[in-house]
Amino acid sequence: MSDVVVALDVGGTGMKCALIDTDGAVRHTERHPTDAGRGPDAVVETILAVAEGLAGKAHADGLTPTALGIVVPGIVDEARGVAVWSANVGFRDVPLRELASTRLGLPTALGHDVRAGGLAEARLGAGRDAGHVLFVAIGTGIAAAHVVAGTAATGAHGAAGELGHILVRPDGPVCGCGRPGCLEAIASASAVARRYAELSAAEPIPTAEPAGTGTAELAGAGSDDGSAARWESGPSMVTAAQVAARAAAGEELATRVWREAVEALADGLATGQALFDVETIVLGGGLAQAGAGLFDPLRTALRDRLTFHREPRLVPAALGDEAGCLGAALLALDQLETS
Amino acid sequence: MSDVVVALDVGGTGMKCALIDTDGAVRHTERHPTDAGRGPDAVVETILAVAEGLAGKAHADGLTPTALGIVVPGIVDEARGVAVWSANVGFRDVPLRELASTRLGLPTALGHDVRAGGLAEARLGAGRDAGHVLFVAIGTGIAAAHVVAGTAATGAHGAAGELGHILVRPDGPVCGCGRPGCLEAIASASAVARRYAELSAAEPIPTAEPAGTGTAELAGAGSDDGSAARWESGPSMVTAAQVAARAAAGEELATRVWREAVEALADGLATGQALFDVETIVLGGGLAQAGAGLFDPLRTALRDRLTFHREPRLVPAALGDEAGCLGAALLALDQLETS
Repeated sequence: MSDVVVALDVGGTGMKCALIDTDGAVRHTERHPTDAGRGPDAVVETILAVAEGLAGKAHADGLTPTALGIVVPGIVDEARGVAVWSANVGFRDVPLRELASTRLGLPTALGHDVRAGGLAEARLGAGRDAGHVLFVAIGTGIAAAHVVAGTAATGAHGAAGELGHILVRPDGPVCGCGRPGCLEAIASASAVARRYAELSAAEPIPTAEPAGTGTAELAGAGSDDGSAARWESGPSMVTAAQVAARAAAGEELATRVWREAVEALADGLATGQALFDVETIVLGGGLAQAGAGLFDPLRTALRDRLTFHREPRLVPAALGDEAGCLGAALLALDQLETS
Repeated sequence: MSDVVVALDVGGTGMKCALIDTDGAVRHTERHPTDAGRGPDAVVETILAVAEGLAGKAHADGLTPTALGIVVPGIVDEARGVAVWSANVGFRDVPLRELASTRLGLPTALGHDVRAGGLAEARLGAGRDAGHVLFVAIGTGIAAAHVVAGTAATGAHGAAGELGHILVRPDGPVCGCGRPGCLEAIASASAVARRYAELSAAEPIPTAEPAGTGTAELAGAGSDDGSAARWESGPSMVTAAQVAARAAAGEELATRVWREAVEALADGLATGQALFDVETIVLGGGLAQAGAGLFDPLRTALRDRLTFHREPRLVPAALGDEAGCLGAALLALDQLETS
């Protein structure tokens, strides 16, 4: 009879859930809506019920659930097992680890979604050959995880890695957090779309899409902790993916907006490299799906900014939107090792 | 017969050396000139000879030298024991750990001066009650050490903690490293003095010192790795300490320069807090000697910049210019524990 861990990645809109065995192989996956509008108590009850359901599913399949890992966005105090603050899930000081371990009778780890995603990318994904990795998730917001020797830094209060809220443009737009010039206010997928919409309104352009323009959702991963600028897309709003494609097709306005975002992102990554000195920077989240249109100019811009620092490898994430759930499983397995 | 470690803090101009026992008590200190102009081979020979002399002094005093710790500025690869790059000591890829351990026959640790100073402040000094500490040395340059649970982060290539070289003012002055707008180019002691001199030349002011102006040397600690803007003080140049004093006395130009430095420093510390999330920020180096004239406005400016982050304690360093040497001793003691 094989051992598995139960893993849940709880986001503002949905939960990605899995049963994962001790070798990291995914045995079963499920998705459930979060329905955060029902309030935190209802969301907690759903999390616990889903986790119980997964444990039951394991037993039914002849598997033994041995531990539980849950990751949530926002500020998460891993050491105390408390979801300190998560605006879009509605959590404030929820002792989720204890609630879950009591309900399921399993050793439980509570973690942060982006840090867990970074952990998974560093151990199993695009950073797996590096001892020092910076994982940066760029979607509706921007957040990072600094992973050294397979452990993600949490900070003293569970708030480490807020790369989206470092100053890059003192005279830049005001961020969702209230401060001007944060990286997230310029280089997140939502900021790119918003900036393009603003400039288009000031300077109308043809609305026909150039050939090859995708409509891929770029809101994807990233810390959706509510401090992030939200992804607000009206029916007529051009997405960041479309801005990238229009820039690639040579459209002047899109080129300008995209370049502004890439330059700001390079400044943010250069600051990260100055402080962390990693071997590999892994970019995930929706914006990273822009591929060479992002990575080629970003590598050049980053190289321009590094003087005495070693240049890190800059690579796309390998695990897609499963990274957070895999990271939750890794936290659960780590919990077993230390308990 | 009591055990001691031999500790050397090698700077561009001088070496601070000590014999320190296993309880951290300093049994003997010496200072020697570095004379870096003689070239790296001669500096290495002096380091080895001074270390031998200290070991001999220990024996003569009935003490047993059990390990050696050496810290140098620049980029230091602790894992390989190599001084990778240190402009003002003239080192390039010097395998100093092996050279020293072969010569003295003692387990030897090689470290970075500011990281070692941070280690000492975090374990023994102003950060000793905190698990997560950011030590920031502000002198001729600005550098930082992130210390978690008594270990300073080194980075993948020995270059972590370069807080002086993060972007804070995209349209700011060009830094010694070649990039515009680095924190160090605005908020280091040398940058404050330089900026004041520039503006004074443009707008001459009375040269009489207001009452209470000190002439304390503010170049002090800080990463003197040569990438830093150098401390250049002509006979007529007003020091950063004097700028701080004139600002406190209400002089308009000094107030403006001091405020610019404090605001930039607050931006840099806010970025550090967003990424590291520490309990305590310890400020060392010469500029921190400005006392309340620095700490009061800096605390306010930092608080203004923190939105969802926890505010760290902001405190002056406690160990003065002995911190690097104490850190070297701690690295030597750590080496004994793990070998």
